[in-house]
Amino acid sequence: MTTRRTIESLDEHKRELVVTLDRLLGAKEQNLGMIRNLLVDLHHADIADVLDVMDPEYAVRVLDLLDSETASDILAEMEETARTPLVELVPPHELAELVEEMPTDDAADLVGELDEAAAEEVLSHVAEEERQEIRDLLSYDEKTAGGLMESDYVAVRQDATVSMAIEAIRRAVEEVESIYYVYVVDDQEKLTGLLRLRDLLLSPGSRRVDEFMWADITSVPLEMDQEDVARLVQQYDLAAIPVVDDSGRLMGRITHDDIADVLEDEIEEDLMLMAGVSSDDIIERSSLRIAGGRLPWIMIGLVSALVAGLIIDNHEQMLEQYMVLAIFIPVVMAIGGSIGLQSSTIVVRGLATGQADLIHLGSRLLREMRIGLVMGLACGLSVGAIAWLWQGAWVLAVIVGLSMLMGILVAATLGAVIPVLLDRYKIDPALASGPFMTMSNDVVGLLIYFGLATLLLRWFNYAG
Amino acid sequence: MTTRRTIESLDEHKRELVVTLDRLLGAKEQNLGMIRNLLVDLHHADIADVLDVMDPEYAVRVLDLLDSETASDILAEMEETARTPLVELVPPHELAELVEEMPTDDAADLVGELDEAAAEEVLSHVAEEERQEIRDLLSYDEKTAGGLMESDYVAVRQDATVSMAIEAIRRAVEEVESIYYVYVVDDQEKLTGLLRLRDLLLSPGSRRVDEFMWADITSVPLEMDQEDVARLVQQYDLAAIPVVDDSGRLMGRITHDDIADVLEDEIEEDLMLMAGVSSDDIIERSSLRIAGGRLPWIMIGLVSALVAGLIIDNHEQMLEQYMVLAIFIPVVMAIGGSIGLQSSTIVVRGLATGQADLIHLGSRLLREMRIGLVMGLACGLSVGAIAWLWQGAWVLAVIVGLSMLMGILVAATLGAVIPVLLDRYKIDPALASGPFMTMSNDVVGLLIYFGLATLLLRWFNYAG
Repeated sequence: MTTRRTIESLDEHKRELVVTLDRLLGAKEQNLGMIRNLLVDLHHADIADVLDVMDPEYAVRVLDLLDSETASDILAEMEETARTPLVELVPPHELAELVEEMPTDDAADLVGELDEAAAEEVLSHVAEEERQEIRDLLSYDEKTAGGLMESDYVAVRQDATVSMAIEAIRRAVEEVESIYYVYVVDDQEKLTGLLRLRDLLLSPGSRRVDEFMWADITSVPLEMDQEDVARLVQQYDLAAIPVVDDSGRLMGRITHDDIADVLEDEIEEDLMLMAGVSSDDIIERSSLRIAGGRLPWIMIGLVSALVAGLIIDNHEQMLEQYMVLAIFIPVVMAIGGSIGLQSSTIVVRGLATGQADLIHLGSRLLREMRIGLVMGLACGLSVGAIAWLWQGAWVLAVIVGLSMLMGILVAATLGAVIPVLLDRYKIDPALASGPFMTMSNDVVGLLIYFGLATLLLRWFNYAG
Repeated sequence: MTTRRTIESLDEHKRELVVTLDRLLGAKEQNLGMIRNLLVDLHHADIADVLDVMDPEYAVRVLDLLDSETASDILAEMEETARTPLVELVPPHELAELVEEMPTDDAADLVGELDEAAAEEVLSHVAEEERQEIRDLLSYDEKTAGGLMESDYVAVRQDATVSMAIEAIRRAVEEVESIYYVYVVDDQEKLTGLLRLRDLLLSPGSRRVDEFMWADITSVPLEMDQEDVARLVQQYDLAAIPVVDDSGRLMGRITHDDIADVLEDEIEEDLMLMAGVSSDDIIERSSLRIAGGRLPWIMIGLVSALVAGLIIDNHEQMLEQYMVLAIFIPVVMAIGGSIGLQSSTIVVRGLATGQADLIHLGSRLLREMRIGLVMGLACGLSVGAIAWLWQGAWVLAVIVGLSMLMGILVAATLGAVIPVLLDRYKIDPALASGPFMTMSNDVVGLLIYFGLATLLLRWFNYAG
């Protein structure tokens, strides 16, 4: 990924800030106090947006002006594409200091973006314990619970009292960004319960936590797919979910903000795939690079359109005799694609949200076929009628109407089956709503059209 | 909305549960204890899923078996389409009791689904204060911060001490489902700060809250659009955001789980609109109703395809003379639609995430046109070359290649302009990625093709 945000992607206030910062940093005599004053009231997430679009040379000087806690918060929020060139300008031991201040999940993300030598160099300056945590996090697949979690959390033993839990929070408060729960573990570090902060606030200090902890809690294994984790958190409206290893030991936690990102990214990815584009196109600067990313889809589509052309070429004689057949080529082609897109979109989303599955392939298929039948009859009859009224040839009306009906049935069926098959073979089912599939359905529609035309024209002895 | 979930949308465990419950409830001698035991360990969100697909007559009997707190939690989580027929079977005074137990946002949602008379009847049994809160919530537009918020929160005055804040939590703990912050208000109820629970845990009881509260907080006005609220919460990784009226008085709060739903719904809506389908199609039972929902899109597409047919009809003479022109109709048609879909998808998502706006229409337009130029040159040259090699006619090659280039340029431009225009006139810009727009681009491609053919064939004196 080499995409960077453009300044146009920012709101007006931030754009102005970028211009002002650029001017101040480019001036001969730099007024560092003024730069600091410009940023002091801003949220680190907003400063991150601003640095995302600035020249790395300038951005690193802005970071230098801020205290290391703020600088670390900002780095954690920046886009990877802007962050990588920036951190290359920061001396490894200083970067290590910033990494140590970050939540472990962000620290691992940042270190994971560096090349191996640079990552090792930075890690060598990070304190032993934190270094091991980062290495552990880097070892998990990015798209799993392990890859998403942070290893900073507050946990106490079962025999701890409320006062001891509060002390544990006091010790952790620097390390753990947002504390929603205190986790309770046994002497093998196995997760046995959790405490909400309000429970601690309302209980006497001497009370043992296992007397009132929530023991019936939902946790997820390290290797669970991130989308499944997100669905679970959404189903139960959780603020954070604990992650455990095979033996039930507490390994980390995933908080609601990371979950929201997963849910949004997942569906955004599907939407982009449907059009054959990439989310990066929104913020990418280079037209050539964007075009390069989009062209493969278009080229695949071209090939399928050329196949359609080949089919027409093969029926040139028939067309020459019955020019009127050419008029309905657009109708026959366009509809199959749209119908297939509709069925596949529904099935793809059903698969993504867990509301469709392999077990019900049969019933789902039957349903999309029934829907296809209804739509096929509606379209076939109306287009058939139009063909009759327009051209006054009933054989044409039958050919057009019948190929609409059949084309729609086939498209609806393929639209429902293909995503499920792709899913079974671990290929992203959203591909089935992409331009290639849509255009393939066009080709199928055309094949049916000319096939029927050949058959019926011969049948009724229309040919000379 | 008359869509109900089907049993197929549940996972295997829940499907089995539905079957077992149906059998037990249908039996002559009902074993109520057994039914209760089946449900006792389940999360209310899971029971809600199960009741969503059951017969309302049976579902209401299941609710009757449970204590009112659980029953109220379940009702709050159910789908509107399953809940409405169910609550009609509950006597108004009992329903009022369940409504009182709910968070106010869920209570207002439920009451808002009833017809006016039933709503008044239920509200008449609800305690005065809560009734007024529900009425207030119902008065806000559903898609705004006011429509999304709940009026249950914990707030204290600025001069309160930590102990007083803890007492306020103790009093609220029954009412307020998840407490993330304690809000601080002045004597006009204006929001002046917030306290995190951890801050309360770590501070001495006698300390005044305004000495250590967070005063620099983000709040949103009642009328802010829900998507803007969601973007703000996501930008700052908040667990909850307070809602204030024009004079800054605290009116309610919105929690992270509602925000995640907004973010997901918004993009899901765009995706569905692209294909001309509805999210309801995933869970709807009736094929006829689904087909009815999808047909309008297809019919609009049919009309634009018939227009394409009309164009072909108008050039019948030319086609009869140069049959070879027919071969490239699919190529010319298909590509315009795909290219337009690509530009519009990117611009639509950019608008939705606030990364594109009216101010930059000019630069965005230029960019999409540059991308269109690159793709048009690539496609035009390759298709032109293919036309030459295939048919050996250089005029055909020029016609096909040039109309590809021009069609792609036009499609890319329209794809970028139309969503921005729709957005300006407050129409959902995602419509610009729908099947109608896609097919319109096909028609434009065809017009350019035949226009160029007419022009060039005459120019080179090809016609007889």
